[in-house]
Amino acid sequence: MTNSGFNQWMTHIQERTEAALERALPSPDLAPSRLHEAMRYAVLGGGKRVRPLLAHAAGDISAASPERLDRVACAIEMIHAYSLVHDDMPCMDDDTLRRGKPTVHVQFDDATALLVGDALQTLAFQHITEAALSDSAQRQLGMIRQLAIASGSRGMAGGQAIDLASVGTQLSLPELEFMHIHKTGALIRASIGLGVQCGRDLHEDELASLDHVGKVIGLLFQVVDDILDAEADTATLGKTAGKDAANDKPTYVSLLGVTQARALAEEMCQDALDRLAAFGNSAKRLSELTRFIVRRQF
Amino acid sequence: MTNSGFNQWMTHIQERTEAALERALPSPDLAPSRLHEAMRYAVLGGGKRVRPLLAHAAGDISAASPERLDRVACAIEMIHAYSLVHDDMPCMDDDTLRRGKPTVHVQFDDATALLVGDALQTLAFQHITEAALSDSAQRQLGMIRQLAIASGSRGMAGGQAIDLASVGTQLSLPELEFMHIHKTGALIRASIGLGVQCGRDLHEDELASLDHVGKVIGLLFQVVDDILDAEADTATLGKTAGKDAANDKPTYVSLLGVTQARALAEEMCQDALDRLAAFGNSAKRLSELTRFIVRRQF
Repeated sequence: MTNSGFNQWMTHIQERTEAALERALPSPDLAPSRLHEAMRYAVLGGGKRVRPLLAHAAGDISAASPERLDRVACAIEMIHAYSLVHDDMPCMDDDTLRRGKPTVHVQFDDATALLVGDALQTLAFQHITEAALSDSAQRQLGMIRQLAIASGSRGMAGGQAIDLASVGTQLSLPELEFMHIHKTGALIRASIGLGVQCGRDLHEDELASLDHVGKVIGLLFQVVDDILDAEADTATLGKTAGKDAANDKPTYVSLLGVTQARALAEEMCQDALDRLAAFGNSAKRLSELTRFIVRRQF
Repeated sequence: MTNSGFNQWMTHIQERTEAALERALPSPDLAPSRLHEAMRYAVLGGGKRVRPLLAHAAGDISAASPERLDRVACAIEMIHAYSLVHDDMPCMDDDTLRRGKPTVHVQFDDATALLVGDALQTLAFQHITEAALSDSAQRQLGMIRQLAIASGSRGMAGGQAIDLASVGTQLSLPELEFMHIHKTGALIRASIGLGVQCGRDLHEDELASLDHVGKVIGLLFQVVDDILDAEADTATLGKTAGKDAANDKPTYVSLLGVTQARALAEEMCQDALDRLAAFGNSAKRLSELTRFIVRRQF
């Protein structure tokens, strides 16, 4: 498969995700219209849609229907968007730029940003219950539970709390890894886990192997993020660059240096690709996407 | 049934709710411990548990098991607690006292309060998927959806947004009602709706009638809240009294005066009791609870 095939696939998934999010978000014509306008501002028209791409790529492995994958992808992207809105608020990272646009609390106000995040999280759980995602309603309940665990105090929100507590402290590599497994990794891992479950049943060891891949890609993503934050300038990144160093936040780069961090990313990438090889052609997109995540420049 | 029977029942439900919440909330021994400590602070050891009481009382009508009702009650109470934590934050109502204790952002800090609210909402959706709430997994998916709709931008969070936008403006009685149907009413209505669905199937017209009762009790609750806020002092209320008037927020009392607001509450109460009469003895607790909500002094 040529690289242009992968790029086309990626653009296709990004476009259908945008369209699905557009449909899933309440219209600003509905009251309360300012809240709905701000929710749409937070979610639409930007973002790399990494988690939707991962869900769709993982869904290929179990031959899941694109419509089910859209729904899972939207729910996860809503959770991701809510976390960005809240993370950017003055009491957290106090950031003013996101995806090349003013952050929600800058464009609207703090109270609206708070409610936007709250309502986006709720909408994620509403959205994921509104159509069948599996032939088994029982499995769908398990999928919702998995999304909640990945997002909550033992997942993404917990990672955020650990991150806050770590500002200005010296973390060891295992501690940094523990933080990122929760903060970024849990939701990325869930993207793969939920995508796979939209399709046919896989064997337990196949699911375990893909869960490992999800964990690796989650960490990998953060390592690359840290490298990009250290190297890129604000214009390329579409968000404030160099924030981590300025905030004295521990990162893979501050711990390992850029060269070793990049070597770690390559090593993790290979680990994931080795696992995915067992799934043959069905894992082609997920393998390509893994490589893409390591090589990306934004 | 004597009043002491009702008081005993109420204490019993409050105690079992407290115990169920205690079990459902992550231990502070688990990382991130400060977040978990703050989540427990926000939820445990206070609150009237009105929504759990409503869920249990409504569950009597369909002979639902207490264990299922505990689970629904906990999930709803987590949503309620998250909304209080976020509402109290400086960018919203900026309140320092709740249930007789410093609010979460005062006791901890703003960032922790933000994450506590986020993680409590997630935990609610996790909790409601962790055991069977109905003999039908399909119905349980519908219940989760109902909880999400009641909590989101077209429910509680939406009502909060309308409330914010209304500060300093003059609302009509229908506008005030619209706001409260969302802000407080939606979750109270869901407490009754979800409680009932934990048990045997009811007829559609019975469900519709109980939904009307839920809507009425939701509004009723807010009318009484407004009266108490206008009349009570801070010590009795356990939260800052007179805030609404101080913030120039429209209330039933500012629109109708205390006497007419009280008459409206009595009228709504009678409407609910008339509907509940059709359910005979199975609706005894819900009828008593409705009367209690009108007469309460806190």
